[in-house]
Amino acid sequence: MKITCKQQDLSRGLSVVSHAVSSRSTLPILANILLTTDQGRLKLSATNLEIGINCWIDAEVQEEGSTTVPAKTISDLVGSLRPIQVELSVTDESHTINVKSQGTNATIKGMDPSEFPLIPSTEGSETPIALDAKQLKEMITYVAFSAADDDARPVLTGVHVETSNEQLVFAAADAFRLAVMSIPLPAGEALADTILIPARTLTELARILPNEGTVQMIVTPNRSQVLFHTENVDMVSRLIEGTFPNFRGIIPKGHTTRAVIETKEFAAAVKTVTPFARDSSNIARIKISSGSEDGQEPGTLTIEANAEDIGSNVSTINAAVDGPEQEIIFNVRYLSDVLGVLTTPEVALEVISAARPGALKPVGAADYTYIIMPMSTNR
Amino acid sequence: MKITCKQQDLSRGLSVVSHAVSSRSTLPILANILLTTDQGRLKLSATNLEIGINCWIDAEVQEEGSTTVPAKTISDLVGSLRPIQVELSVTDESHTINVKSQGTNATIKGMDPSEFPLIPSTEGSETPIALDAKQLKEMITYVAFSAADDDARPVLTGVHVETSNEQLVFAAADAFRLAVMSIPLPAGEALADTILIPARTLTELARILPNEGTVQMIVTPNRSQVLFHTENVDMVSRLIEGTFPNFRGIIPKGHTTRAVIETKEFAAAVKTVTPFARDSSNIARIKISSGSEDGQEPGTLTIEANAEDIGSNVSTINAAVDGPEQEIIFNVRYLSDVLGVLTTPEVALEVISAARPGALKPVGAADYTYIIMPMSTNR
Repeated sequence: MKITCKQQDLSRGLSVVSHAVSSRSTLPILANILLTTDQGRLKLSATNLEIGINCWIDAEVQEEGSTTVPAKTISDLVGSLRPIQVELSVTDESHTINVKSQGTNATIKGMDPSEFPLIPSTEGSETPIALDAKQLKEMITYVAFSAADDDARPVLTGVHVETSNEQLVFAAADAFRLAVMSIPLPAGEALADTILIPARTLTELARILPNEGTVQMIVTPNRSQVLFHTENVDMVSRLIEGTFPNFRGIIPKGHTTRAVIETKEFAAAVKTVTPFARDSSNIARIKISSGSEDGQEPGTLTIEANAEDIGSNVSTINAAVDGPEQEIIFNVRYLSDVLGVLTTPEVALEVISAARPGALKPVGAADYTYIIMPMSTNR
Repeated sequence: MKITCKQQDLSRGLSVVSHAVSSRSTLPILANILLTTDQGRLKLSATNLEIGINCWIDAEVQEEGSTTVPAKTISDLVGSLRPIQVELSVTDESHTINVKSQGTNATIKGMDPSEFPLIPSTEGSETPIALDAKQLKEMITYVAFSAADDDARPVLTGVHVETSNEQLVFAAADAFRLAVMSIPLPAGEALADTILIPARTLTELARILPNEGTVQMIVTPNRSQVLFHTENVDMVSRLIEGTFPNFRGIIPKGHTTRAVIETKEFAAAVKTVTPFARDSSNIARIKISSGSEDGQEPGTLTIEANAEDIGSNVSTINAAVDGPEQEIIFNVRYLSDVLGVLTTPEVALEVISAARPGALKPVGAADYTYIIMPMSTNR
C-alpha cells in the first residue's frame, strides 16, 4: 500500500472512526483502525462489535493494500502533524505502516487486516429510506436522550423506529418519560417492520453525520443490523431485539390546562431551582395560574424546589394560560433535559391533573411530544 | 445584612473565592463561603486552611451583617440568574440568606460566620513588595510547573522565592529538572529572608490575578504565611518550611554546543514523537548536527523515540548550531512542559555532553533558564 493524502482529511477521518474504537476489549485488534485503499480513496474502519464506522477520504493511491494500526497512536501522530501532504506506505508483510510528512518519518506496528471483523455492506438489503441529514440529527437530539441509560429493561435503551402513513416515527422512553417525534417520508418509502436502534448508537451517529445532504437508512437482510450510509461515512449498528411498549397508550388524549411559556425563560427558571431540588429526589413543584379575567394580571407558571438541609427557591415566569389553576410535581431533571434540546421560542405545557402525565410540546414547529409522569403529591 | 449588587459581579466574585473552597474537609464550614459587608462593599471569603481568598465586589449596602452559605448552592443559584440586580438579605439569627432577583426568590441555609476561620490581614507585616500583575503571572507560568507534584520531598513542591541584587528570583525543581526566572525589583524592595510558596498556590494565584495592575506580596509577621494583595482580591497561603536545595550549583556554567530553534517547530516535533516515547519511559533521543561549513546544508536538530511494541518516529527541524555534534537523551515530557509555556519565537538548547544537564533558554527575552537532567544512554 502506498498513498498520499492531506493531513486535514486523514485527521478528520481518524476522528470520525475513533467513535467506534473499542478501548477496553478482550480482542486487541478492536483497538486498531483498518486502513484500506478503496477505488481511489482511503477507507478507514473501526468497530466495537456494537457499532462499526467506515469513513472514506480523498487520497492519491499509488499502490493498493491495507493494514490495521492502533487507533490512539496513529490519531495522536497524525493530529500532531502539520496541515500538509502525508505519505502512508506499507512495504512488506509485517503490516507496519510508514508515515512520512515534512520533517517526520514514523513507523507504527500493525496487525493483520484479515483478522479485522467485517463491517457489513449494503448488498442485498432492504430498499433504503432516504433522510435529510439535518432532520435526522434533529430527530436524534429530540428523542434519544429520553431512552433509559441502564440495562434493566434492554428495550428501553433503544429508540423505536417505525414508518406509518408516510411518516417516520422515533420514540424513546424510560420508566418516567417518553419522547415521540414524526417527520414526513417520501411516498412509497417504508420499513418492512419496526426496528429498535440503541440510543447510544444514534447519539454517536448525530455526532459524525454531516450537517447537510442525504442519509440512507438500510436494514440488513437478516434484520439484525441497521446501516446509515452517506457519501463519505457509513455507520452500522446492531439492533435491539424485543418489543417496545405501546407508547401511544401513554400519550394523553387532551388536557384541561395549557400554559404557553418562552422556552428560554422556562429553562432559566428550571436551572435556578435545580440546586435546591438535587437533594430532595429532584422534586420540582409546578403551579400554573391563569391571570385576572380583565387581562391586567398575566398568567404565571411557578416552579418551587425545597431541600430541608439547604433551602428553597421559587421561580415565577409569565405564561399564557388556558384552563383552571393546576399543580403538578415533576422530576426537575426531566424538565431540564427536554428544555436543553428544544429550539422553538415557545413551548406549551399541557396538564390534565396532578396525577396524570403532563405533556410538553414545542409551539408551531416539529411534530414532537414529550410526556412526563408526575411524581406523587404525598411526599 | 441587606445588600444589592450586580449578578455579574457576584457571580465573578463567587467563582474567584471558590478556588479556595474545600470540597472534602472534615470541617463542614470550609465548604461554605463567608459573605460580609465591608466598608460599602461585599466581601466574599473562602479557605481550605492551605490557602484563603478574599474578594470584594461593589454593592449597595443597606444594612451591615454577615453569614456563611454552601459555596456550591449559592454559586449554582447565582450562576443561573439573569445579569441584573440581585438582592441579598439575612433577616434573623438563623444565618439563612434570602436571594431575590426578577422572578426568583430563594433561601439558602447558612452557618454561624463566627465559626469561619480567620483569613489573616496585612496588619503589622513586613513592608510589601510591589509587583506587576502581568509579570508575576508570567513568572508563575514559567516556573511553577517544574515543582514536584508528589510529597516525597515537601520542599520540592514549593517555589523558592528570594530577593538579591534588586532582583526577584523564582526557582522550582523536581529531581530531574529546574526552572529559574528573575525580574528586576524597584530599588530598596526586598524580602527579609527567602520563602518557599507551594507551587499549587501560585498556580491558583495566576488563575485569579487580574491581567494588569499591581500586586503586593507581603509575608506575615510570624513568617508562616504570604499574602498577595490587589485592589479587589487577597490570597493568603501557608509557606513551606525547610530549605530549598542550592539550585545555583546545578546550572551549567557554559556549553560546548548551542542550537537555536523556532519554539513552535520544536514543540511540534516533540509532539509528533510523544506517542512513541510514552511506552518507553518517555525517552527522546536528541541529536544536534551542525550544517556544512559553506552554509549550504543547514544545521538540524532531530528527536527520535522508539517503542518496541508500537513503532518509532524521527522528527527533524532546522537549527542554527554552534559547536560540535551532540547526542543527549531527555524525558520528552520535560521538553513538552517547557515548550508549552515559552512565548518567545526562538529558544536555545545548550549542551555540554550526553552525561551533563542541558539548558533551554528563550532567545532574547526573559531572564529564564530551564535545566533538564539527561537520561542514561545505557538503556
